Amino acid sequence: MFQYQSFGESHGPAIGCVVDGVPPRISLDEAYIQGFLDKRKPGQSRHTTQRKEPDTVEILSGVFEGQTTGTPIGLLIRNKDQKSKDYSEIKDKFRPGHADYTYHEKYGIRDYRGGGRSSARETAMRVAAGAVARKVLETQIAEQVKIRAAVVQVGTERINLDNWDWDQVDQNPLWCPDKEAAAHWETYLDTVRKSGSSAGALVEVHASGIPAGLGAPVYDKLDADLAKAMMSINAVKAVEIGSGFETVVLGGEENADEIRMSEDGAEFQTNNAGGILGGISSGQDIVVRVAFKPTSSILKPVATIDKDGNETDIVTKGRHDPCVGLRGTPVVEAMMACVLADHWLRHKAQCL
Amino acid sequence: MFQYQSFGESHGPAIGCVVDGVPPRISLDEAYIQGFLDKRKPGQSRHTTQRKEPDTVEILSGVFEGQTTGTPIGLLIRNKDQKSKDYSEIKDKFRPGHADYTYHEKYGIRDYRGGGRSSARETAMRVAAGAVARKVLETQIAEQVKIRAAVVQVGTERINLDNWDWDQVDQNPLWCPDKEAAAHWETYLDTVRKSGSSAGALVEVHASGIPAGLGAPVYDKLDADLAKAMMSINAVKAVEIGSGFETVVLGGEENADEIRMSEDGAEFQTNNAGGILGGISSGQDIVVRVAFKPTSSILKPVATIDKDGNETDIVTKGRHDPCVGLRGTPVVEAMMACVLADHWLRHKAQCL
Amino acid sequence: MFQYQSFGESHGPAIGCVVDGVPPRISLDEAYIQGFLDKRKPGQSRHTTQRKEPDTVEILSGVFEGQTTGTPIGLLIRNKDQKSKDYSEIKDKFRPGHADYTYHEKYGIRDYRGGGRSSARETAMRVAAGAVARKVLETQIAEQVKIRAAVVQVGTERINLDNWDWDQVDQNPLWCPDKEAAAHWETYLDTVRKSGSSAGALVEVHASGIPAGLGAPVYDKLDADLAKAMMSINAVKAVEIGSGFETVVLGGEENADEIRMSEDGAEFQTNNAGGILGGISSGQDIVVRVAFKPTSSILKPVATIDKDGNETDIVTKGRHDPCVGLRGTPVVEAMMACVLADHWLRHKAQCL
Amino acid sequence: MFQYQSFGESHGPAIGCVVDGVPPRISLDEAYIQGFLDKRKPGQSRHTTQRKEPDTVEILSGVFEGQTTGTPIGLLIRNKDQKSKDYSEIKDKFRPGHADYTYHEKYGIRDYRGGGRSSARETAMRVAAGAVARKVLETQIAEQVKIRAAVVQVGTERINLDNWDWDQVDQNPLWCPDKEAAAHWETYLDTVRKSGSSAGALVEVHASGIPAGLGAPVYDKLDADLAKAMMSINAVKAVEIGSGFETVVLGGEENADEIRMSEDGAEFQTNNAGGILGGISSGQDIVVRVAFKPTSSILKPVATIDKDGNETDIVTKGRHDPCVGLRGTPVVEAMMACVLADHWLRHKAQCL
Repeated sequence: MFQYQSFGESHGPAIGCVVDGVPPRISLDEAYIQGFLDKRKPGQSRHTTQRKEPDTVEILSGVFEGQTTGTPIGLLIRNKDQKSKDYSEIKDKFRPGHADYTYHEKYGIRDYRGGGRSSARETAMRVAAGAVARKVLETQIAEQVKIRAAVVQVGTERINLDNWDWDQVDQNPLWCPDKEAAAHWETYLDTVRKSGSSAGALVEVHASGIPAGLGAPVYDKLDADLAKAMMSINAVKAVEIGSGFETVVLGGEENADEIRMSEDGAEFQTNNAGGILGGISSGQDIVVRVAFKPTSSILKPVATIDKDGNETDIVTKGRHDPCVGLRGTPVVEAMMACVLADHWLRHKAQCL
Repeated sequence: MFQYQSFGESHGPAIGCVVDGVPPRISLDEAYIQGFLDKRKPGQSRHTTQRKEPDTVEILSGVFEGQTTGTPIGLLIRNKDQKSKDYSEIKDKFRPGHADYTYHEKYGIRDYRGGGRSSARETAMRVAAGAVARKVLETQIAEQVKIRAAVVQVGTERINLDNWDWDQVDQNPLWCPDKEAAAHWETYLDTVRKSGSSAGALVEVHASGIPAGLGAPVYDKLDADLAKAMMSINAVKAVEIGSGFETVVLGGEENADEIRMSEDGAEFQTNNAGGILGGISSGQDIVVRVAFKPTSSILKPVATIDKDGNETDIVTKGRHDPCVGLRGTPVVEAMMACVLADHWLRHKAQCL
Repeated sequence: MFQYQSFGESHGPAIGCVVDGVPPRISLDEAYIQGFLDKRKPGQSRHTTQRKEPDTVEILSGVFEGQTTGTPIGLLIRNKDQKSKDYSEIKDKFRPGHADYTYHEKYGIRDYRGGGRSSARETAMRVAAGAVARKVLETQIAEQVKIRAAVVQVGTERINLDNWDWDQVDQNPLWCPDKEAAAHWETYLDTVRKSGSSAGALVEVHASGIPAGLGAPVYDKLDADLAKAMMSINAVKAVEIGSGFETVVLGGEENADEIRMSEDGAEFQTNNAGGILGGISSGQDIVVRVAFKPTSSILKPVATIDKDGNETDIVTKGRHDPCVGLRGTPVVEAMMACVLADHWLRHKAQCL
Repeated sequence: MFQYQSFGESHGPAIGCVVDGVPPRISLDEAYIQGFLDKRKPGQSRHTTQRKEPDTVEILSGVFEGQTTGTPIGLLIRNKDQKSKDYSEIKDKFRPGHADYTYHEKYGIRDYRGGGRSSARETAMRVAAGAVARKVLETQIAEQVKIRAAVVQVGTERINLDNWDWDQVDQNPLWCPDKEAAAHWETYLDTVRKSGSSAGALVEVHASGIPAGLGAPVYDKLDADLAKAMMSINAVKAVEIGSGFETVVLGGEENADEIRMSEDGAEFQTNNAGGILGGISSGQDIVVRVAFKPTSSILKPVATIDKDGNETDIVTKGRHDPCVGLRGTPVVEAMMACVLADHWLRHKAQCL
């Protein structure tokens, strides 16, 4: 029901998306969306790409006098910082870890400039769509709906869970909820970057204030749709719900989230399920963890071939995030918002 | 393009599914599908539920004189072993870890008999659809397409990767590729079962013989669709592609799968990507790992509430798999087959 | 949101369908659905095919203790009257007006027995799905929602609009709202049948009690979805909404349905729009007219070819409706119900 | 498979669309699309709206170095001629025949400027998408694929079918294939316009060079999808395939398109079926006729209400087409192209 479709390449004239299915009479303006885009914007610290783009979003349709009209919302961001650079290195060579080889094999043509369609730039539009989704949830469920993500591990370095403080996340450039870890990570990432390497990241997202009942029993399970949405983010290689992989080693009685009564109704004593049972939200926080692989564009040379089948090496110069998972964090939040908005509308249709 | 929709509850008259989009003139009969169903069948060892069902599938449509006609294939399995048992225990109480509470909250009604729609029984239809999908892949890509899954961990016990032997998988009731581990697991699971507890499992699936080019760049990425398909299986809580969560700790140069030329063309030197780059298959084996939580139906009492909000305990008697991941293995294979068949047909449409 | 998918061939083991998206806690049983099927049943008069089938529907899932559960509703009808007859005539020859040639060209295989998938028998499942859709509308909008179709022309013979009486429709075997016309048509159709020919029909359907607001502005317009649904019925060649083709010759001021106020709110003075403006229901009766071509299976010989490219003639013996539009009438009602139920649920999702 | 989604309101900043599923390596540039847009452009004769817009399309993505890349094609047209006019007349009053009342009832908000989303302006994007669809058909089927529409009736005035000359269609501003009728229509429409009224139109579209096999047996029949596509065009109230409503009065033997053999294979002797049998193309020309109602914006006053429920009259001043069907003609062509491109890709997926 809540749908978005993006278009656009990294170095083409613009990127954009169409968000459809949005209920009418929801307050929405460019400034609101821009706020979320700015969080994801490159060039905010030395740990993210130095490509500088204002990334100014324009609402082209679907909003009238500050309110949604129920018709498709067209969003556009002009690409401004397309340096006319020398692409001879990546034009014919396939960068390992990138989509170069598979796009070539599938389509026989690819816009190699800045990665074209496979660039993380596309995720700006997801963040924009996510901002609209948040508005839907806040307006229709409750203002208290909160969707927050944090980086819990960078490369080999994990946070201390006991230090978790959501307020810290906005106070360091690494989306880290552990103040001490954040300081340490800065040094760690400097080392990684200077060595010409890159680091992966583990991102955890929580949605709170979501009522029980969102989801479906079999194919369009809430967790299944979340898994798809997260895995569709560039560089993501794994997704887990609640205790995820950890549940494999738990006994059935340890894994069971026991239920007691509180003043507000059912109260689960633990949340191994990550807020989803049988594909449907239980009213607990929805908790998802997502693994980002290390940035594939690195300064260390790696062996590859070119499109004529010659063996060669490649070094990816240019402005790249040493840890792509950092800027992935607001994208993870956005995908959570989009999936929940969609299931909220479906739930209304069938059950409310 | 390749679509399937199942219907049916655990203790209703029947379960079934409709498989649509199947190309015409593919040999198909009930015996072929039955072969895969029999692998998933309950009651084959003491480690799976003792519910005994012949699970005989009937092809109702879409096949004429032994060949698919291109029209929807209706498949049906009558439920035979619905014991008219006493449901008073689970009728009103919510079993922790099950869908009882969320179905109740969403729909205000639920078929509590045997779990109704949330029963793992539904996965029989996925296995049936998966059998059809395999036929599509074998007929249209190559007979050599192979989709194989194995259990690589049960509870705390992992296989020794050095012992991996695909031929072992069919020779023990635990889908274990490590002969020694299999023997050990039997004892381990007996202990778990006798203690009234249950165990999780880690299942790994490989698809080989799949050409480069299946998938799409952004939303319907092959890995995203696989994540959704796997996460939609009952009891699955995590999915990873290739090196998955492990990639977080790898440096960019370690994670990069370098490419060299062989006689057959591009040859990746490693497979951290799990055969998927930028959402599109690379021609390498597609490798996915799936975490099954421990069976929620256990003999140890757990705290819960009933639908009137009274606090109580529950013990789930009856015939349950102590490790639901075991019988999940053919379902994981089936989901892989279905997703690949779908993307194969899409790839034909757009690029061939 | 309200979806149905049928499967099954005319002379296969069974036909069936899966209805998904149905809200929970709606009363539903087999007798209710059977009532609508019985209206469509063949063999009720000399004007419809003499094939005799009990067409007993079985609910396989999605209903528990007489109420929908919100999960997919599986419906099944076993084929009973598959005479093992001689198909040599139609096995290799293409019957003009039928799908024989196009199925052969598309699929290279076809189940020729009784027309296989292209048989009007498939429409029984639409009537069954339509019965469920009616329940959704009656339960969620108002008991007063009424969907009624009538035959307004058979071959060259039209009704007198002044004689329109809905109560007549059930009192003659021709779904005719004009008592005099019905009597005349019986004679007319006897003549047609005896001459070995067949007749077309014009069917008109009205939905009343539908609130304003169902539909969408551009692609999924209510009238667009109705047009698709109606045109997908076997033998239908044209669809019009409200005054339809007649509007071509109207001046703008004649075509405009002027609006005045009544006690109940806006009151349109005419209904040229057929109850739909800008793709959205206006609260007036929704009126659609559908043209059925004459039955293609006739006793007069027509020129054709066989699949080896030899020129030949064909006479279609067997039990055929001389006017297939008659039995199409409940199907037209059913499609109206399905489209409205779908748009009702969508409207709830976005706007309620 | 071939999908397009438009966005944008008549007087917002821009209209646009995203075309997805396009095969790679198809030549495409803005000039090609612009050619089709120019045909639909307002202000080309006194018989169409005098609103003047350059309607310059910009390709934002999905094309690289003059060729499609297989990724979504973003298209944009900035709105230039939004006169800041006085909307007080239509802001609160509901124009009969327009979407004003139903948008208000559905959404509780509407962009009333120029009709907002319900403006025929949206069809510019359909024409753009249709241009892309033509490229798909011409590249993948044959250069000879031809999709041509003509106006065959304006108000009460029909062409003489014997005078049909496709070459005439481009030589008069009325898309008329009959030179004599064209001259007569000019006078006729002047009279209509001067009287403050408006006229409907009947448009016929032919697709030739389409092979047998496009379509599907039951729900997604080619004719059903064409009916939906055509009915979704603004002001369309009826759709017929081949002989359409006329088939009602034909005997079965008259309606049957007999088949003989020619050097090129099967040759139908007539085309009552309009090139579609059983929902699948037969290789004959695909023929569809579409009825456009008279323009609802007229200078004659009509009775209506305002949003506060007061009875009033309305006269729609401004720049309006006296016969909206004229400019609908290229839209009808575009919809035919889009539906055929979609079914072509589906056919490839399943059967080629």
